[in-house]
Amino acid sequence: MRMVDIIRKKRDRVTLTPEEIRFFVKGYSDGSVPDYHASALLMAIYLNGMSDEEMLSLTDEMLNSGEVLDWSDLDGIKVDKHSTGGVGDKCSLILAPIAAAVGVVVPMISGRGLGHTGGTLDKLESIPGFEVQLTAERFREVLASTGMVLAGQTAEVAPADKKLYALRDVTATVESIPLITSSILSKKLAEGIDGLVLDVKVGSGAFMKQHSDALALARTLVKVGQRAGKKVVALITNMDQPLGTHVGNTLEVIESAEVLKGQVTKGDLVELSFELAAHMIVLGGKAEDLDGARKLVDQSIQKGTALRKFQEVVAAQGGDPMALEDYSLLPTANKTEPIEASRRGVVQRIDAEEVGIAAMLLGAGRVTVDSKIDPGAGIVLHRKVGDAVEEGMSLATLYYNDAKSLAEARSRLSAAFEIGEEAPPSVKLIHKVLS
Amino acid sequence: MRMVDIIRKKRDRVTLTPEEIRFFVKGYSDGSVPDYHASALLMAIYLNGMSDEEMLSLTDEMLNSGEVLDWSDLDGIKVDKHSTGGVGDKCSLILAPIAAAVGVVVPMISGRGLGHTGGTLDKLESIPGFEVQLTAERFREVLASTGMVLAGQTAEVAPADKKLYALRDVTATVESIPLITSSILSKKLAEGIDGLVLDVKVGSGAFMKQHSDALALARTLVKVGQRAGKKVVALITNMDQPLGTHVGNTLEVIESAEVLKGQVTKGDLVELSFELAAHMIVLGGKAEDLDGARKLVDQSIQKGTALRKFQEVVAAQGGDPMALEDYSLLPTANKTEPIEASRRGVVQRIDAEEVGIAAMLLGAGRVTVDSKIDPGAGIVLHRKVGDAVEEGMSLATLYYNDAKSLAEARSRLSAAFEIGEEAPPSVKLIHKVLS
Repeated sequence: MRMVDIIRKKRDRVTLTPEEIRFFVKGYSDGSVPDYHASALLMAIYLNGMSDEEMLSLTDEMLNSGEVLDWSDLDGIKVDKHSTGGVGDKCSLILAPIAAAVGVVVPMISGRGLGHTGGTLDKLESIPGFEVQLTAERFREVLASTGMVLAGQTAEVAPADKKLYALRDVTATVESIPLITSSILSKKLAEGIDGLVLDVKVGSGAFMKQHSDALALARTLVKVGQRAGKKVVALITNMDQPLGTHVGNTLEVIESAEVLKGQVTKGDLVELSFELAAHMIVLGGKAEDLDGARKLVDQSIQKGTALRKFQEVVAAQGGDPMALEDYSLLPTANKTEPIEASRRGVVQRIDAEEVGIAAMLLGAGRVTVDSKIDPGAGIVLHRKVGDAVEEGMSLATLYYNDAKSLAEARSRLSAAFEIGEEAPPSVKLIHKVLS
Repeated sequence: MRMVDIIRKKRDRVTLTPEEIRFFVKGYSDGSVPDYHASALLMAIYLNGMSDEEMLSLTDEMLNSGEVLDWSDLDGIKVDKHSTGGVGDKCSLILAPIAAAVGVVVPMISGRGLGHTGGTLDKLESIPGFEVQLTAERFREVLASTGMVLAGQTAEVAPADKKLYALRDVTATVESIPLITSSILSKKLAEGIDGLVLDVKVGSGAFMKQHSDALALARTLVKVGQRAGKKVVALITNMDQPLGTHVGNTLEVIESAEVLKGQVTKGDLVELSFELAAHMIVLGGKAEDLDGARKLVDQSIQKGTALRKFQEVVAAQGGDPMALEDYSLLPTANKTEPIEASRRGVVQRIDAEEVGIAAMLLGAGRVTVDSKIDPGAGIVLHRKVGDAVEEGMSLATLYYNDAKSLAEARSRLSAAFEIGEEAPPSVKLIHKVLS
C-alpha cells in the first residue's frame, strides 16, 4: 500500500477502504507516513469529504492509536458531554455534578484552554488543592467512590488525533466535518463511555457561524457516534453572546456554585446546563424521558445533592470543598474596574469573541501555549442581550491583578457591547435536538 | 504573510495575489516553507484550480527562481518545441535540425528519461562522443556557430519547479493543468526563447487520456505563454500507438537519420515532425505561413541541409558525425528476436505504454533513477495500427544484449498488439492547432 495511491483515491472522490485508512493513521502515528503525505490527504478530505463508513474507520483508527479506558467493572451507565466550545461556557461544572448526583456515572476528561479563555481544567485548578492530573489508579478510585471525576487525560488518549490536529492547525484543514467528527469522537470514545451528549454551538461567538454547518456537524457526530455503538444526542445551541455572566476561571467556578446552590435560577447558563444534564440523565437510564429527567435535575438543586456531589469530588481530588461556600478561599483579583453604557437603549449584541479576548488580556486565558493563567482575572457582565440600559449604567466589570493590558481589554470590552433603540429579536437558546 | 492563510484562501477558492504566490515559491525554494505546507497548497490548487493571473504569477516566480538565459545578443528568433511525451517520440532529433537549417535559432534544452523510455539526452548520447552536458560558455558557442544546440540544463533552470515536481510526484498532484502549465512554461521560458511550439499528446499512450483534458491543457499553455510575452502554438496530437517504428536510443537516432535523409517519407513520425518544424519556422519568421514553411521543410530534406545541420551540431558537441551515415559506428544490440502474429487480420491497437515498458525491460529505459541505459537495446515495429498481417508474420523485433528480462519483454510486447478482423477506424494524427 502506498500513500500516493490513497491520496489519489481521495482526490478523485473514490471511497477509501478501512485498510487504507488504517495504513494512513498507523503510519502517521509511527512516523512512517511523513507530514507532506498527511497534509495532502487532509486537504483532499477537506475538499472532497468522507462517507459515513470512512469517518467510522477514521474515528476507530484514531481511537485505537492510544489507550482505550474501560469502566465495565463499575456499575452504571457512563455518560459524558462534549461542547464545541464558547466564551463563558462552564456547563461542565454544573451538569456533571447534577448527573452524578442523580446516579449517572460521569468519567469526564477535559482539556486546558488553548484559545482565548481557560478550559475546564484551568477553571477547576482555581479551587485550592484541586488536582486535575490524576494517575490512572487515582482516576479510577475517584470515579468508583463518587460516581464522577473531572480530570485531564490519564494516558495517551488518541495520540494520532493529537498529531493530526497539530498538522490541521497549520494547513487550514481544521474546519472539516469528517475531520472534526473523527477528532471529537475518537477522544470521547477512548474514555470508555456508553453515552455522549454533544453541545454543538452556532453563532457569532462559535466555531460554526452558520446554522447549516452546525446542523451538518451535529448530524454527522450523532450518526457516526451511534454507528460506533454509543448512545449519542446532539443539541444545537446558540452562541451569539457569552454564556452566563462570568468569564474567567475563579469567576466561572463561583457562577457554577451559585447555580448549584439555586441562587441563580434563570438565564441561558441555567437553561442550557440543566437541559444538557437532563439529556445525560436520560442516556444514563435514570429517567424514562426528558420531563422525568428535568424533575430530577430540579430536585438535585433543591435538595442540594448536586452541590454536595461537586464538593465530594473536589475533596476526593484534593481540593478544598469549603471554597465553594466561602469564595474568599478562591484566588481573586484585587482590582476591578467597571465599564459604562455610553447611551440609553437596549443591548443588541455582546461580541463573545471580543469578551473572551478582553478576559485573556486581563490574564484569564493564554496568549501563548506557555502563558501562565491568573485564576482571579476575568469579566462579569451586568447586562446581557435584550436588557435595557441607561446612559452611565455599569455594563460589566473587569477583574485584574496586572494592569499591563487593561486599556486594551477595556476598549475591546466596551466595543463588544452594541446598544440600540429597539429590543433585538429574541433568539432561541436551543435550536434543535438530534438523536 | 503566513502559509496557513495562503492555503486557506486557495482552499476557499479565493484568488491568490502575486505577492502570495511569490511568498510560497520563494519560501519553498529556500526551505522556509516546509513540505507539508506546500503539499496542502498543491492539493488545494489541484482541486480548486487557478486563474490565468495566478498561473502567470506561478510561472513567473518559478522561472525567476533560477537562471534565465539570454540570447538577445545573437541574431534571429529563438524557438523551441516541447512535447508532453510519448513512446517512440524522437521528433526533436528531426525538427530541430530542419528548423535550424532553415535559419531558425534553436536553443533546445532537453531532459533524460525518467519513465519507461529514454529522453532526448539519452538518445543523443548513443552517438559516440556526443556531449550533452555543456558549460554555459560551450552552449553559447555551439548555438552561435551552428544556430542550434541540443543539451541538458547548463545551470539551475527553475529549481523551484524541480523541487515542487518531486513533491507533486509523491502527493498525487501531478495531473493538474495549472501546475503542469507553470512547470512546462517556467522551464521553457528560462531558456530565453521567443517562440514555443507545444506538442500536447492525447490518447491511451499519453499522459492525457481524454481529448477534453488535452484541449484544456493546450489552451491554458497557449494563453499563459502568450501572456508571458512569447509566441506560442500548441498542436494536439494522437498518441494511441508508439510514434514511428523505432523505440530505444540508438534505434531512434537511426530512424531520425533515415527521416532526415529522405529515406522515410511517410507515416506518423514524418508527418508530425515536419508539421511541428513548419510551425517553428513560422514562429521563427522564416516563412509567411504554414504552406511556405512546409515547402522549406521539404527543401531541407531534399537538399540534405537538415541532415548536414544535424551532423554539424553533432561535430560541434564532440560527437562523430559519420555515425549518422555509418550506423555500425553506433552502439548496437548483439541479439535480436522477432515476435510473430498469432493470427491473420488487421492490427487494431498497439499499446504504447506496454511497448515502452518492454523496451525498458530490454535496457532502453531506466527502471530506477540510477539504472544505466543500454543504448543498443529496444524494439522495432514492423506493423502499425491498420496494417494487415498474416499468421506467423513478424510484428516486431526485440534488440537486446542482456536477456535477463527478455521473457517478460517478449510477452508484454506480444500482448501490446491487438489483431482483429476489420480495419480499425482511422484516427487523425493532428487533432487541432491552437494559437
